Parts: sequence; C-alpha cells; structure tokens
Amino acid sequence: MQGVTAAAGFRAAGVTAGLKASGKPDLAVVVNDGPAQAAAAVFTANRVAAAPVHWSREVVKDGRVDAVILNSGGANACTGPEGFQDTHRTAEEVAAQLGLSATDVVVCSTGLIGERLPMDKLLGGATQAISVLSEDGGPDAAASIMTTDTVPKQAVRTGSGYTLGGMAKGAGMLAPALATMLVVITTDAALNPGQLDVALRAATGVSFDRADSDGCMSTNDTVVLMASGASGVTPDQAEFTELLAGLCTDLALQLLADAEGASHDIAINTINAASVEDALEVSKSVARSNLFKTAIFGNDPNWGRVLSAVGTTQAAFEAQDLNVAINGVQVCRRGGVGEDRSLVDLASSRDVLVTIDLGAGSSQATIWTNDLTHDYVEENSAYSS
Amino acid sequence: MQGVTAAAGFRAAGVTAGLKASGKPDLAVVVNDGPAQAAAAVFTANRVAAAPVHWSREVVKDGRVDAVILNSGGANACTGPEGFQDTHRTAEEVAAQLGLSATDVVVCSTGLIGERLPMDKLLGGATQAISVLSEDGGPDAAASIMTTDTVPKQAVRTGSGYTLGGMAKGAGMLAPALATMLVVITTDAALNPGQLDVALRAATGVSFDRADSDGCMSTNDTVVLMASGASGVTPDQAEFTELLAGLCTDLALQLLADAEGASHDIAINTINAASVEDALEVSKSVARSNLFKTAIFGNDPNWGRVLSAVGTTQAAFEAQDLNVAINGVQVCRRGGVGEDRSLVDLASSRDVLVTIDLGAGSSQATIWTNDLTHDYVEENSAYSS
Repeated sequence: MQGVTAAAGFRAAGVTAGLKASGKPDLAVVVNDGPAQAAAAVFTANRVAAAPVHWSREVVKDGRVDAVILNSGGANACTGPEGFQDTHRTAEEVAAQLGLSATDVVVCSTGLIGERLPMDKLLGGATQAISVLSEDGGPDAAASIMTTDTVPKQAVRTGSGYTLGGMAKGAGMLAPALATMLVVITTDAALNPGQLDVALRAATGVSFDRADSDGCMSTNDTVVLMASGASGVTPDQAEFTELLAGLCTDLALQLLADAEGASHDIAINTINAASVEDALEVSKSVARSNLFKTAIFGNDPNWGRVLSAVGTTQAAFEAQDLNVAINGVQVCRRGGVGEDRSLVDLASSRDVLVTIDLGAGSSQATIWTNDLTHDYVEENSAYSS
Repeated sequence: MQGVTAAAGFRAAGVTAGLKASGKPDLAVVVNDGPAQAAAAVFTANRVAAAPVHWSREVVKDGRVDAVILNSGGANACTGPEGFQDTHRTAEEVAAQLGLSATDVVVCSTGLIGERLPMDKLLGGATQAISVLSEDGGPDAAASIMTTDTVPKQAVRTGSGYTLGGMAKGAGMLAPALATMLVVITTDAALNPGQLDVALRAATGVSFDRADSDGCMSTNDTVVLMASGASGVTPDQAEFTELLAGLCTDLALQLLADAEGASHDIAINTINAASVEDALEVSKSVARSNLFKTAIFGNDPNWGRVLSAVGTTQAAFEAQDLNVAINGVQVCRRGGVGEDRSLVDLASSRDVLVTIDLGAGSSQATIWTNDLTHDYVEENSAYSS
C-alpha cells in the first residue's frame, strides 16, 4: 500500500478531468472513512492566497476534514469572488456525492494563476473520481496532482501499530513557509485535532519550511493531515511527531530532487551558530544567492560567494572566524583562504554539502536548495504558471 | 571633459598593471589637487567586507581624501591580515609618490574574492599611473576599472558655476546598499565634508540603493565623493544634492543597462503605497523573484508572479485592491484578471515598466532590475568572482 491509502480508513482516486492540455491525469479525491475525521493543516503565508486556500482555512478550523479534492491544471488564484464561488461549488458537489457537509471538504488547486477553472470539466472529473475511489488509489491520486513534476511523490512511515502515508506535488518554485506544493498526509492513528496540529507544525517547521529551491512563495501551498483512528492506536505524541517529520522531510527532498531544471541538490548546513534562528538565516541567505547557485551549476566551489551571502545577515559571527567547507574540503578558514578549491569535486555527484561554521555557539540548521541552471531559466520563461 | 576629470582640480589616469589575464587596463588613480580636499563616502553593508573597504572607511572618517587608487583583477576580500597589509602598503606607496599622507588615500579593489593581489604588479602599475596623471585622464580611469563591464560608465552634471563628474564600475551582481560597484565622483564645488556626506547619502539612497539586478550584495562596494573647491562656488545644498542624485541615477542605470546577460531593463514602480518604505519593500520583492524575472526573459507578462511576490511582503494593502500594469496594460484589476495579457508587448523593447498600485496611500518608489536569462547563468557559472 502506498501514499495516502497506506493507512487504514482512506480511499483515493486520480482521474483525467481534462483540465490539462496534455490530457494527463489532473484531479484527485482523498476520503477519510473514519471512524474519526480529525485533521490539521498549514497553508501558504502568502497574503495573495488562492481561493481554495481561503476556503480550506475555514474548513479545517473545527479540526474535521472528511475529504480533499485536488486539481492540477489551474491554481484558481487571483480570480476574484467568482473564483471563490467555484471553489465553494466544488466542495458542495463533492460533499453531496459523498453524503458529507461541504464545510468538511478541503479544496486544493495548482497551476496557472489568474484564470478561472473550467467548472464543467472539473465537476465531471470529481464525479468520475468519486466513482472509482479505492483503498489502492494512492498512486493514482499522486500522479494526478503533478504539474511540471517528472515523478509522483509518495512516502510511508510505520509506527507502533499505526501507519502514516502521504503524497506531494511540487517541482521547483519552492520556498519556506511553504513551497509551491500540495501535500496530503493520512494516518490511521487515533489523535485529536489539537494533537495533529502540534505535530504538523513541528514537522513542517523542520522539513518543508527548510526547502528553498528558488526563494519564491506560492499562492496555493497546502499541507493537510487527516487521522482516521482506524488502527485504534493512540501513539506517543513525540514518536508520532518524529515519524511525521521524517515523512515530511522525505517528501520535501523528493520535491527538491525533482526541482525544475536543477542539476545539483544542495544542503547548506550552518553549524556553531548562536541560535537555530541564526543558523536558518545564514543558510537561507546562501540558498537565495543567485551568484552562489550559478557557481554550483558551473561546478565552481566559489566560497567567496558563500561568505558574501553570509555577510548580508544579522546572525552573530565575526568575519575572521568564518569557516566554510564544500563537500568536506575546508575551502575557507578563519575568513580567509583555506584548502585549495580545486580539491572540491562538484562534477561527479548531484549532492553538494556546504558547511558554514559561524564559531558563535552550538546551534545548527540545514536548508536544502538547488543550483540555478539554464534549464531553470528555460522552464520558467517558457511555462506560464 | 569627461567623468572624474570633468570638474576642475582633479587629475586621473588608467593603466595596465598586469592584474588581469586579459591584458586590459586594470588600475586607476584619481587625485584631488584642491585647493580643498573635502570628501565623503558610503560603503557596502556586507559584514564580510574586503580589506580595502576596512581601510577606506578609516581614511574618510576625518572628511579628507587626497587620492583614490582603484584596481580590477582582484577584490582583496577574505584575504586575512595579509590582505589588509597589502591595502595599507598600496596607500603608503601612492602617498609617498604623491607627497601625501597614506591616511588620505582611499583604496578600492574589485575582482575575485579569496586571492591575494600580486603586489609587485599592482605597485608597478601605481607608479606608472601616477606618472601619467592628467586633467584629461577620466576616460582612461573609467576604462581601467571594468571587470565584466562591456562599456565604461561616466556621467557629468553642471551646476551654477560648478561641475560634478563621476565614473562607475559594475555589471550585474547589483543589489541595494550597494551594488557590486566602485564609484568615484568629483566636484569643484566648495563644500565641507558634512555637507558632502548629507548630499551623498541622500543621493545614493534614491539611486544606487534602488538598483537591484540580482539581489546579491558585494564585499567591496564603495562610492566616494571628493570636492576640490576649485570653482570657488559654494552651491545651494538642495541644488547640489539634486544634481548629485541625478548623476548617481545616471550611473546606476548605466550599470543596470550593462548587467551581465540581461535582455530587459525593468522598472518596478509601486504607487499609492502607505509609505515609501512599503513601496520599496513591494518593488524589491518583485525585483528579487526569479520566477518573475525568468517570465520577463520569456516575454511573458505573468502578473500572477508579480502578485505572488507582492503577497510575501508586510506592506499595507488588501489583496482584492491590487492593480498591476505591465507596459501600460492593466493586466490585473482589483486582485483579479484585467485586460488581456496578450496585449502586452515585451518583445519589441528592452525597457519594461511594471506598475503596482497598492491602493493604500499616496507614496511611491521605483526599483530597477533586470530579467534572469541564460546569459546570466552562463556568465556567472563560468566566471569565478
């Protein structure tokens, strides 16, 4: 069993509604058959949020979600009151067909901003998806939410008598809080909405929030977590949170590995920081430096561009204490030249590890990012999204 | 008369010291022959500042600068105590040859970070430059500070009985406070260091600080303003500041027009903001969106990416009040779809104007930036700097 149907109590489906010009699957439904319908969610921090985000924020407020409908092929963002009515109507139709309340149906959309969805196609697809809901439908659902993704993303974790499963959509355009992505996570653990909310915020804070592909924040990002209680097991909160964080990190790294046009996956680990906040600020500043990211694309271990980015932060450090290692080679020592940069091999692996030692404390944090490549420019100049 | 020798009281020279592998000119000297030697300067806000920045900050503290020596072919950044000694020695040698105090000699360097300068070549070049100092030397000086610049940058303004002239180096890698750039401005007006400092901070705040090519802040940025008093005219402070701001804006736009690999020059004008700070935050957020910048490269008037960037700011606005025009076409009206985006012509001109109406006040500000292109990726992945 895979993805969102790995945990007991869930059915899913993915179908072709005709929203995408490509004719590929573009609509998914995930239903929680219970016995419980506890839920929590986090949404984009973007103040220009899409209609489905406005709707779904209200839906999850009471901690109950019975079903999620997701579409690719259109973001339904910046579509005015009509766009919100489209989302509302979608939830009403799904609810009617499943015998639920519309206010328990989360709606997620992804695709081009600024265009109305073709509602006839979307609602037809919803009917079709509901007719084929299955306890094996996870992979179909994961495939149908892809946009520029080249592979579907799913993950599963097993706890003490319960299971967690999830699917994610996203490929580049990723940034903290959150990436341009839709994520549905299911579990058959018995947890109440408050417990789910605490666990989800902790887990996303160390996973999706630390993935920063291109610094851009989307209008549609949604991570929804549903618990059916079908296992009858109420897990230890710490264990559950750790499993959930692991599953979220797994999905986040799958998103980065599939980032549009990237040729390197870069982990930027800031160590010996005065605080986790400092470590995050430093790692993010490097992750957002186009100069650093183009250098990595060119297989150039240009540590000067790392220091230049670090120097723009407010973190506690002295410039003459900074050490930087790239793939284990200490290219910068005490703010100056260290080992020979030609010792760094960036060409033979996709993975790059940059370690920045601030020498100012004992905290650390990692931000994951990608290099900036010709293919990134090509995909994002040619693809209207 | 051009550039830094347009104003009376200044001599300059540009020579080939051999710092650049290309064999092109790479060293300049500008001397203020007085009668006054008043000066002011602003430097990079990067906490990882190069040795010449550390040195020059001290030099200008007393408001007196007699000479500036500038080199391309090496930034002398992240070079430790030895790098600082190299800068100090450079100032000493220039001072000795000109009969000045080393503490009145500003040093500027630009090029690759993390490598010592070849001091024999640099000092030989300094001697050579001093031997050919001339009241017509401005253009030679401007040519010798180029790195990836394709053209030298100079500007002149004429006041009521006095003149302002300047030269700048920079091509991309530009960001507020400041761009990666070296700028020397001269005037024969009679102003004291305090007056110069006030004028320079006001002028750079509305010019160089509003140019943001790629969001990256350099370790070496320096803008130095010297006044010889040779005209005998003490100008009105407001008039002088306005002329200086115009000259700085002229140079800033020359820098952007020569930005590495750019195919569009983009002005992002945020209007009807609650404050200038809000307008700047909004314009900068769009200027730093790689998604927006790649869309413009693709001649795609993707206003969704504009709104998505605006939504990440803390500026006062309501999403449903936002209006966006691209090259005069109102593509987004009240947060939703406006005029047909196909009406926007991005292909036939290098200049792009994005107007963002926040509907929240009466302040406005413009940030100038470039698109993100294949050539940007190519130049910055292939060129170690």
